[in-house]
Amino acid sequence: MSTLDAVLSRIDQDIDQSVERLFALLRIASVSTDPAFKQQCRDAAEHVAAVLKSIGFTADVRPTEGHPVVVGKSNGVSGPRVLFYGHYDVQPVDPLNLWKTPPFEPRIETLPDGRKIIVARGACDDKGQAMTFIEACRAWKAVTGSLPVDITLLVEGEEECGSINLPAFVEANKAELKADAALVCDTGMWDRSTPAITSTLRGMVYEEVKIKAADRDLHSGIFGGAAANPINVLTRILGGLRNEEGRILLPGFYEGVHETPSQLKADWAALKLTPEQFLGQVGLSLPVGEKGRELIEMIQSRPTCDINGIWGGYTGEGSKTVIPSEASAKVSFRLVGDQDPKKIAASFEKFIRDRLPADCKAAFIHHTNSRALELPADSPLLMKAREALLSEWGKAPVTIGSGGSVPIVGDFKRMLGIDSLLVGFGLDDDRVHSPNEKYDMSSFQHGMRSWARILGALAS
Amino acid sequence: MSTLDAVLSRIDQDIDQSVERLFALLRIASVSTDPAFKQQCRDAAEHVAAVLKSIGFTADVRPTEGHPVVVGKSNGVSGPRVLFYGHYDVQPVDPLNLWKTPPFEPRIETLPDGRKIIVARGACDDKGQAMTFIEACRAWKAVTGSLPVDITLLVEGEEECGSINLPAFVEANKAELKADAALVCDTGMWDRSTPAITSTLRGMVYEEVKIKAADRDLHSGIFGGAAANPINVLTRILGGLRNEEGRILLPGFYEGVHETPSQLKADWAALKLTPEQFLGQVGLSLPVGEKGRELIEMIQSRPTCDINGIWGGYTGEGSKTVIPSEASAKVSFRLVGDQDPKKIAASFEKFIRDRLPADCKAAFIHHTNSRALELPADSPLLMKAREALLSEWGKAPVTIGSGGSVPIVGDFKRMLGIDSLLVGFGLDDDRVHSPNEKYDMSSFQHGMRSWARILGALAS
Repeated sequence: MSTLDAVLSRIDQDIDQSVERLFALLRIASVSTDPAFKQQCRDAAEHVAAVLKSIGFTADVRPTEGHPVVVGKSNGVSGPRVLFYGHYDVQPVDPLNLWKTPPFEPRIETLPDGRKIIVARGACDDKGQAMTFIEACRAWKAVTGSLPVDITLLVEGEEECGSINLPAFVEANKAELKADAALVCDTGMWDRSTPAITSTLRGMVYEEVKIKAADRDLHSGIFGGAAANPINVLTRILGGLRNEEGRILLPGFYEGVHETPSQLKADWAALKLTPEQFLGQVGLSLPVGEKGRELIEMIQSRPTCDINGIWGGYTGEGSKTVIPSEASAKVSFRLVGDQDPKKIAASFEKFIRDRLPADCKAAFIHHTNSRALELPADSPLLMKAREALLSEWGKAPVTIGSGGSVPIVGDFKRMLGIDSLLVGFGLDDDRVHSPNEKYDMSSFQHGMRSWARILGALAS
Repeated sequence: MSTLDAVLSRIDQDIDQSVERLFALLRIASVSTDPAFKQQCRDAAEHVAAVLKSIGFTADVRPTEGHPVVVGKSNGVSGPRVLFYGHYDVQPVDPLNLWKTPPFEPRIETLPDGRKIIVARGACDDKGQAMTFIEACRAWKAVTGSLPVDITLLVEGEEECGSINLPAFVEANKAELKADAALVCDTGMWDRSTPAITSTLRGMVYEEVKIKAADRDLHSGIFGGAAANPINVLTRILGGLRNEEGRILLPGFYEGVHETPSQLKADWAALKLTPEQFLGQVGLSLPVGEKGRELIEMIQSRPTCDINGIWGGYTGEGSKTVIPSEASAKVSFRLVGDQDPKKIAASFEKFIRDRLPADCKAAFIHHTNSRALELPADSPLLMKAREALLSEWGKAPVTIGSGGSVPIVGDFKRMLGIDSLLVGFGLDDDRVHSPNEKYDMSSFQHGMRSWARILGALAS
């Protein structure tokens, strides 16, 4: 039996313990966007550090202005050095009433088709995914007493709130984090049997706007028809962000958006992804992107505009004839190519201000701001990973763009000068960011085995 | 001293006790729109019935499908019969943190200019106003042992949620409620020294709409650009309800809207109401109604469209990249002239459905539905009240239209065949429906005296 085979076999034998260790992490309610869960975020960081120590890494929990960062290091390993990135924080759980079981009480469910899934907030994003890598390291250590490459782990706690303090942390610890390449496990597979390497990542601008009109709530029977209504104003302006053709109307928005290369378009066309398949799984059928574009372009290589939240006025039961004094919305844009997030944030702000009645005010919060990114097609990193994934899954991985954003990948490129390999095992039906988030047991097990293979391949 | 003078003097002497009795009613948190306050609404009804009994009326609390109705009757009085209408329910108090003192702990405050005000939820709308009438009755009884006219009182508990059960109640008790005229105290003065008779009332259509898209919340990184976003859809549709000229774009909306008579326009012009005066008091300056109309038309004789509440997606702190499964709004229209509320509700629903992506759904709740109304200019009721108000205030009352709606006035006309006289003592700065609602002590005292005079005038 080869060393690699022994490592893979160890992973299969140890699966129940691996699941137990994942459950222990899932039980910690590390919701990073809500200050009420500050202590739980710290608990999750301490937990990850303890896990890393238990497999012979040195690990410590480092403070930031926000939630702490865990840094772990395999020691005394020669050969190439890789920097692994994951995050221990999770999304909020609301609406809580839609969860079938409590979000922080992980459980295994067997679906009617026999598939086993792990259900909990963070089961996939990103606790389950990060643990595939950590457990792969554990198996290598158990079998060989060492690791095939030198590994530094960086596990942060603010990915779900835009990694606001991570760039400064990476900048301040450049020398220590320097590596030959970064590995990231926060993306998905093409489908349940086809692995994927994500070679492009959409960037993001996430803005919050509050429109203020009168200095108090007004009775619409007295002031209606005369006084500015901030919800009327907000809907009128946001309602004009896109035209009937699905084009986003911010001036300059499409600067830096490149046409999808025709070879990639042809590859994608071969995947035959239909709206029925992709949208049908969530009860929809009509793609809303730019007219004339294929669905796969809309989700991979075209920019988007989504209003993620809106609120204002009376939202209780019954009716209240109020003209509120203010109304707010959270609006995000996914970016591609060379779109400049700063210019787009500024264009959004100007779009609002240009359309605001002169006696109203607008206030902004800038939540996120990251560029889109790309891994070169001839990267050895990409080729080694492709080979490893083919061996594990018996199927060549698809090279895709991700609709999501992983801002740290841009920071690694800019600050450490390294490319990132994005391999992950999420599935479209994982309900990431939704109630009843899950991770397939198959994703977990083959994910661990995939990383074990990739680590081996990177040593050669 | 004439009998009337004795009654007026009794009101002045008894003012402290009148305030105490109003406070007792204001202490009851009778918020009708929120089911959590059901018992408090019942308590308020019982309280009003007890107050009426204390001045020799028979009174009882009658059940409806919702909050009960109080019916009180002066007994054994000959002469004309009037039906007084008021309501014991109040608006919700949110946002509670903007109240300087608890909303149901009434207090008297002296303003820097020496004016005294009563501060509490319902101080004006409508507990303070209703008590001006009840206290006027008390003074007549105290001085004469009787009343100048036969009085039935109808005090309901669902005005703030559209009086949904009152029409059926009036219909079922027609014979008992039949009168020569109705008196309503739920409107305002022109300004602090000028009384007003409201001779036209805007009607109302109040709709709630929910847009449903995917069958679960989605991650915008996976589905963004492809899946319908119900907040995008809602803002696009609602943002198109009015054009740049302030015209409301529902098909057929302006059918039945009449041009303001030129004499009335001239009267109104003489009042010289400027946007600075009217909007300046709430921190605004620019009237938002139809271009080319005077401010006073916008608030009195033109229909309106206001979004009173909107909600959907993530509304907590920070950012969440969610595409929610649904988004909702509450939208109301104030009606004038012969606009048909049923047609307008149907036109609104069609406006939404016509613009909905084929894979999204819309659900509607119809909250309110009432026509606009008018008291004929030559009505003896109007002329007697005018005389009485001139005597009390030393200034002829202004005849105005009200921006608000009092749906019961239409029911009285249709079911009982009677006109309603709307006299009230609210002021524009009463913060009705807002935090820190107040009622001027002068409104309360002169309001009681005004009703004492009107009751006397109606007997002749």
